[in-house]
Amino acid sequence: MSDSSLRHRMGRATLVVRGPDRRPLADQVVTVAQQRHSFAFGNIGFDFVGLVGGPEPEAAADVEGFGGTNDGDLERLGDLWLNLFNTATLPFYWGRYEPRRGVTDAERLTKTARWFAERGVTVKGHPLVWHTVQPPWLLDLDLDEVERLLRARIRDLVGGFAGLIDVWDAINEAVIMPVFENGDNAITRLARARGRIYLVRMAFEEARAANPAATLVLNDFDLSSAYECLIEGLLEAGVGIDAIGLQTHMHQGYRGEEYMQRMLDRFARYGLPLHLTETTLVSGHLMPPHIEDLNDYQIPDWPTTAEGEARQAAELVRHYRSLVAHPAVQSINYWGLTDHGAWLGAPAGLVRADGSRKPSYDALEALINGEWWLPPTDMRTDADGTVAVEGFLGDYTVSVGDRTERFTLGPTQTTATVDLD
Amino acid sequence: MSDSSLRHRMGRATLVVRGPDRRPLADQVVTVAQQRHSFAFGNIGFDFVGLVGGPEPEAAADVEGFGGTNDGDLERLGDLWLNLFNTATLPFYWGRYEPRRGVTDAERLTKTARWFAERGVTVKGHPLVWHTVQPPWLLDLDLDEVERLLRARIRDLVGGFAGLIDVWDAINEAVIMPVFENGDNAITRLARARGRIYLVRMAFEEARAANPAATLVLNDFDLSSAYECLIEGLLEAGVGIDAIGLQTHMHQGYRGEEYMQRMLDRFARYGLPLHLTETTLVSGHLMPPHIEDLNDYQIPDWPTTAEGEARQAAELVRHYRSLVAHPAVQSINYWGLTDHGAWLGAPAGLVRADGSRKPSYDALEALINGEWWLPPTDMRTDADGTVAVEGFLGDYTVSVGDRTERFTLGPTQTTATVDLD
Repeated sequence: MSDSSLRHRMGRATLVVRGPDRRPLADQVVTVAQQRHSFAFGNIGFDFVGLVGGPEPEAAADVEGFGGTNDGDLERLGDLWLNLFNTATLPFYWGRYEPRRGVTDAERLTKTARWFAERGVTVKGHPLVWHTVQPPWLLDLDLDEVERLLRARIRDLVGGFAGLIDVWDAINEAVIMPVFENGDNAITRLARARGRIYLVRMAFEEARAANPAATLVLNDFDLSSAYECLIEGLLEAGVGIDAIGLQTHMHQGYRGEEYMQRMLDRFARYGLPLHLTETTLVSGHLMPPHIEDLNDYQIPDWPTTAEGEARQAAELVRHYRSLVAHPAVQSINYWGLTDHGAWLGAPAGLVRADGSRKPSYDALEALINGEWWLPPTDMRTDADGTVAVEGFLGDYTVSVGDRTERFTLGPTQTTATVDLD
Repeated sequence: MSDSSLRHRMGRATLVVRGPDRRPLADQVVTVAQQRHSFAFGNIGFDFVGLVGGPEPEAAADVEGFGGTNDGDLERLGDLWLNLFNTATLPFYWGRYEPRRGVTDAERLTKTARWFAERGVTVKGHPLVWHTVQPPWLLDLDLDEVERLLRARIRDLVGGFAGLIDVWDAINEAVIMPVFENGDNAITRLARARGRIYLVRMAFEEARAANPAATLVLNDFDLSSAYECLIEGLLEAGVGIDAIGLQTHMHQGYRGEEYMQRMLDRFARYGLPLHLTETTLVSGHLMPPHIEDLNDYQIPDWPTTAEGEARQAAELVRHYRSLVAHPAVQSINYWGLTDHGAWLGAPAGLVRADGSRKPSYDALEALINGEWWLPPTDMRTDADGTVAVEGFLGDYTVSVGDRTERFTLGPTQTTATVDLD
């Protein structure tokens, strides 16, 4: 299914460039420049919640996190982030979002989401339903009450953030949810009592009702046949999945192109877009292979190394190339920008804890902003004022002097008239 | 969920024993004896197809088998088999059942099924749909034709054997079916094109239509969350599963009571009977743990050893005890009686290749026909001619002199009148 020519990522347009008098600008040099990828190159924006939104609510620190720090320099980190990514995932883990019942982190997250949105970044919320990072107070309630509160939480979040956040991981890790054994929690109890399909349907239906325009993602780390079976059951049950989320935290090593292609082919056969929601590659030693739940590997110090950084950069390029080559893949979300505050303390960032770029950052930049990007390019219109543009799907500008107009390269060849006023 | 007191396996009845004149036989010694277990203690009857039915059809030998030999002594093997088991699984692998299109093994299998049925044995057919052991001629056909033939095969088998065989593994190993990679076959192609739920539904619906009274089993070796997800999807889709089949081929070692109890609890929560359809424990060295598909381990000689036989016997007792203790378990089917012709050449039999009993045979006999069995027992009726009987669920006789009557101990306490004519 993959196509390394990436022709499925390219668009073509014939532009008719007209001047302020609406007459074609014949035989004229115009400058065409890409402004944004259609493909979602994402990262988590957890660090920015503290930097933009301020200190976290009381009691949140008692609940585990999944990456993100509250200190650092907003401008410096922001530049590094915005230089590469166009999609930000923000954390809505119930336990940290509402550590005390009724007291939520909505204000900080609204500020942070706005900060990203104002900079042209698509914001995604993660996750509406999950068994990990639960508020402690939920454990005391009976399951009917848990379900009622969970439904209310979904409606409140998805409805409340509609327009600002229109992409959600509706439910996270439903495969293991009812049989999860790494800590008692109310959501596992609920999933065991109600069944996976019931819970997934509940998440999607409540979210859909609260924001019919939302893109709702089913997300899992289990990429085995179990996930296939779950998806087939959900599709059979008519649950409205917009995208299949595939985690690829590779703290135990890059799994290779062959694995990825076969895995993508298996999930692509459902005809839904594939979102690589969580991807990591470490630039230090690898986590031992016998660890089953990555959360079980906690060490005081996990350093980045020169050798590890070279490996991470090379593997990151291979990984992104293989994913972008598969037509079903619609987004890749890397899990963390800097090693400072990274999930599990792993050196999984593209930037070191001191804020300096790793080779992986530069390598990813060379793809996203280099090989897969049309920089400002001079082109000459023909006698009819037309110019043919080919480039990666996305938003572009065409300029003559100080006059600039925007156009979009979509998946079907278009003819567009660009009026430079 | 388990209860080692086995009270869920016991029945109680108050018998009113009457003589030929229909008057209660007061203060009289009667002999009560168990005749049959309600619990299905089964084994495959593959060896008997050749012994009872005669030589296999031409070309069948070109297709792999899963245990069973054509030589041996029917009477001797029959006695060993019938002494322990009340349920026989017969092979209906498509590739061996119909090695040439239109030429089936129906006659031999009918003879063999009758041989068992005449001896009070319940006969089960295995399996209607599976991707392994496919007829070579199927690979040349397009998928619509494969589906048509598969539907016809299910109807022909289930309808044709109705009354003689009323229990079927409707579909085998659907979890891996669409992604099976150990050999190209038409059923994997079909499953990949149509989806698991479609194929399972097809199997159950065709079989149900052909024999509404049949017990139809979903069977798998994958006991992970994948199977849970498949089952949940099927139940959501309304597929009429009568029992969940759980394979436990333990060539790589006994998995222990704790594993079994948790596994049984996970599948018991669907409220369906659990059939332990395929269980084996070897009495030689264990298969190395790195082997994923047991079929990939083929060695010229896999001997039974004294040490292995002692281990097999001890583990078999532990295994059967833990399964019988779980109320959801309705049957245990051991996979093979003798090492001669055993699947994979493994010393998994309860009888050595030379026909002598292993300790495992004796140990299983001590459970099935000993600890869990009511042997002929003298009891005295009271002044009203009644006697209270408690024993394992099953069929019993009560006798006075040469007069004998049958009664059944069912799950609810009953009062039965037994007339000795």
